[in-house]
Amino acid sequence: MAKNVGVLAMEIYFPPTCVQQEALETRDGASKGKYTIGLGQDCMAFCTEVEDVISMSLTAVTSLLEKYTIDPKQIGRFEVGSETVIDKSKSIKTFLMQIFEVYAEGPARPTGGAAAIAMLIGPDAPIVFESKFRGSHMSHAYDFYKPNLASEYPVVDGKLSQTCYLMALDTCYKYFCYKYEKLEGKQFSISDADHIVFHSPYNKLVQKSFARLLFNDFMRNASSVDDIAKGKLSPFSNLTGDESYQSRDLEKVSQQVSKSLYDAKVQPTTLIPKQVGNMYTASLYAAFASLIHNKHSELAGKRVILFSYGSGLTSTMFSLRLHEGQHPFCLSNIATVMNVAGKLKWRHEIETYNSRILNGIEKDSNRGFLMQFPPEKFVQTMKLMEHRYGAKDFVTSKDCGLLSPGTYYLTEVDSMYRRFYSKKDGDYTVCENGSLANGH
Amino acid sequence: MAKNVGVLAMEIYFPPTCVQQEALETRDGASKGKYTIGLGQDCMAFCTEVEDVISMSLTAVTSLLEKYTIDPKQIGRFEVGSETVIDKSKSIKTFLMQIFEVYAEGPARPTGGAAAIAMLIGPDAPIVFESKFRGSHMSHAYDFYKPNLASEYPVVDGKLSQTCYLMALDTCYKYFCYKYEKLEGKQFSISDADHIVFHSPYNKLVQKSFARLLFNDFMRNASSVDDIAKGKLSPFSNLTGDESYQSRDLEKVSQQVSKSLYDAKVQPTTLIPKQVGNMYTASLYAAFASLIHNKHSELAGKRVILFSYGSGLTSTMFSLRLHEGQHPFCLSNIATVMNVAGKLKWRHEIETYNSRILNGIEKDSNRGFLMQFPPEKFVQTMKLMEHRYGAKDFVTSKDCGLLSPGTYYLTEVDSMYRRFYSKKDGDYTVCENGSLANGH
Repeated sequence: MAKNVGVLAMEIYFPPTCVQQEALETRDGASKGKYTIGLGQDCMAFCTEVEDVISMSLTAVTSLLEKYTIDPKQIGRFEVGSETVIDKSKSIKTFLMQIFEVYAEGPARPTGGAAAIAMLIGPDAPIVFESKFRGSHMSHAYDFYKPNLASEYPVVDGKLSQTCYLMALDTCYKYFCYKYEKLEGKQFSISDADHIVFHSPYNKLVQKSFARLLFNDFMRNASSVDDIAKGKLSPFSNLTGDESYQSRDLEKVSQQVSKSLYDAKVQPTTLIPKQVGNMYTASLYAAFASLIHNKHSELAGKRVILFSYGSGLTSTMFSLRLHEGQHPFCLSNIATVMNVAGKLKWRHEIETYNSRILNGIEKDSNRGFLMQFPPEKFVQTMKLMEHRYGAKDFVTSKDCGLLSPGTYYLTEVDSMYRRFYSKKDGDYTVCENGSLANGH
Repeated sequence: MAKNVGVLAMEIYFPPTCVQQEALETRDGASKGKYTIGLGQDCMAFCTEVEDVISMSLTAVTSLLEKYTIDPKQIGRFEVGSETVIDKSKSIKTFLMQIFEVYAEGPARPTGGAAAIAMLIGPDAPIVFESKFRGSHMSHAYDFYKPNLASEYPVVDGKLSQTCYLMALDTCYKYFCYKYEKLEGKQFSISDADHIVFHSPYNKLVQKSFARLLFNDFMRNASSVDDIAKGKLSPFSNLTGDESYQSRDLEKVSQQVSKSLYDAKVQPTTLIPKQVGNMYTASLYAAFASLIHNKHSELAGKRVILFSYGSGLTSTMFSLRLHEGQHPFCLSNIATVMNVAGKLKWRHEIETYNSRILNGIEKDSNRGFLMQFPPEKFVQTMKLMEHRYGAKDFVTSKDCGLLSPGTYYLTEVDSMYRRFYSKKDGDYTVCENGSLANGH
């Protein structure tokens, strides 16, 4: 039987187009810090008319197969997760079958998603599922949903959404601890996790969530809570569950006492979610990719706990054990292949270039390189996307100047709503210094 | 490790409202036999405004749990399959979480689906997956899809859809035979399957599909094809793959030579799909339920091959081994609990009653019992459903006179698109003679 089953390889793709949250604050007339501190977010990636959930998935999966020289025939099972759908009947998976077919046809819908993660699962992996420890919780809730089929946007109850998330976290953690204690004969606490990775709609919720786990440990009288923290949390020990979700004081105090543990265990997981925004299904794994990027040389032997959440709602807390692994399926190579720094730097290069053009320092010699950077351009793009949503019988600009070689992009939606994609010449490659390599 | 994992229990639900295909032919001005012989269909069930994919799923799952006295806490994993979605983000599974929660909230969208199947999977089952034999095929095709998010109806390319289905069948069968031959050291043919169950959008395609398998066996020189059949099929042995999908002569001859095998192996699986119509995801299992209903006392020791297909497309051929099993998880009890005859008879009772009212033989003493039987009423209902599709802020008639006790029904969609359901008093029960039992 296959042993040490887990993640052998990972690839992440996010669009180069993004908008700074600080600039958005100004544009929206929001108070300074509302998005950057209130939500804890730095930047938000978005798809222009040439990218969507299918093109990003095609790019990520193709790139993973190429960079690890995996023959598609070696893949025994293929699963696709997405927060939302392109078509109410035809699955995203079937679009990706193009990769696995010998002939290349061409054909998705923009969903406002802004990243795709591909993972190869198999035996003898450097990232092993510790599946005996797992806690799940599912419930029927209207926290975030998309009942208006003609609209790109969800119906969201922000307050309910946060409470649902934290209640699900509590419940999953309770079951997770129960399983651990039953099998290991000792109490579990956050001290037993070297890192904790959260589904990350916005960073502030991740901060609150980690603080909430510490509060759980406090209520369970676990060893992770020192005397100082105990003293500060004791005024809240008699709150009912409901009260504890509503208490701003508890939120503040628990974040304060968990700050140093947060910096050590969680902060290294926050880079991509803060820089790219809410990636829905990809969000948890983008946070995990941030950890690999930041800490790959120190992760061997470590335990990482992950909390997965989908509105509506379903949630699971599960555990991974990390090993260095064998090349190419090893932590250092996974970090090299994902090249998170290069991809972020490439966005920055575009941004700098744009600023120089906008400020008249440089002339725009290549229209394609002008990124939709200022918030006004972002808003214009969103308007075009709204107009295009659910539309048929149009061709896109096919403007892929900003895209790296090997990136898939949407070229046309025909009169029968059939979608066609092209791949920019070359393999998907961004150099570590953020410049584009010449593809072959 | 768990052994003999498979289906322990099944329940099927379809709405009592239906329209005769023969009456539809007349109403549509179609030639006589176009639907009944051309498609091979007898009757079509449909949801009125008080039922939808969520209410039917709630009814089927609740009924299974009640009739087998299963505590929801015993369920370790819960999977929901549906051809289409109610909401672009919130999963159907989360609606069903109501069943598993201690508190009863109330809350789906009509999708034109017309049946729901619930199955309990576990060890020591009477219906065991022979998972070593399995052939899958997936491909990117636009045979049937729903890109127009504001419309209830799909875009269908009928001819392409049939060719895609038959090509997928051929490919799955090829892989299935390959696996069988590799593991068993002998050739597989349809003679090795006691019954074959197909995804059944309409019965004619099932007839063609079985004939196609026989043609495959002929081309592979398998033992299932006798000399007479060989003689009749030999003129087609040099057709290319493409030609073979287009040839009406081959279709006719292969159906003719496979007729007696079809009657023995396939015909017992066709009852519910012919009576209820296209059930999409539930279709294959409704066909399998028909087999259990018709043959449960003769199935112990038999091998049943199933072909699952979803447009877009993904498909798998897999094998089941049947055993009598231990009460309550045994074939005879599964047949008793599903009570297919009773459910079909109950529809018939309503229909007869309606006819008597329509013909003035009886007075309608109970408006709720007037079924939407004549095609005009069916068309009216579809118009109401189109109007209601994607709508919010309305209450339904709550008219559940036609529904059996224990059936869930839609009562309201509020201004936030939240859906509310009620359960008709009593457990879901239809007597074998087709009358309704008093629920408790």
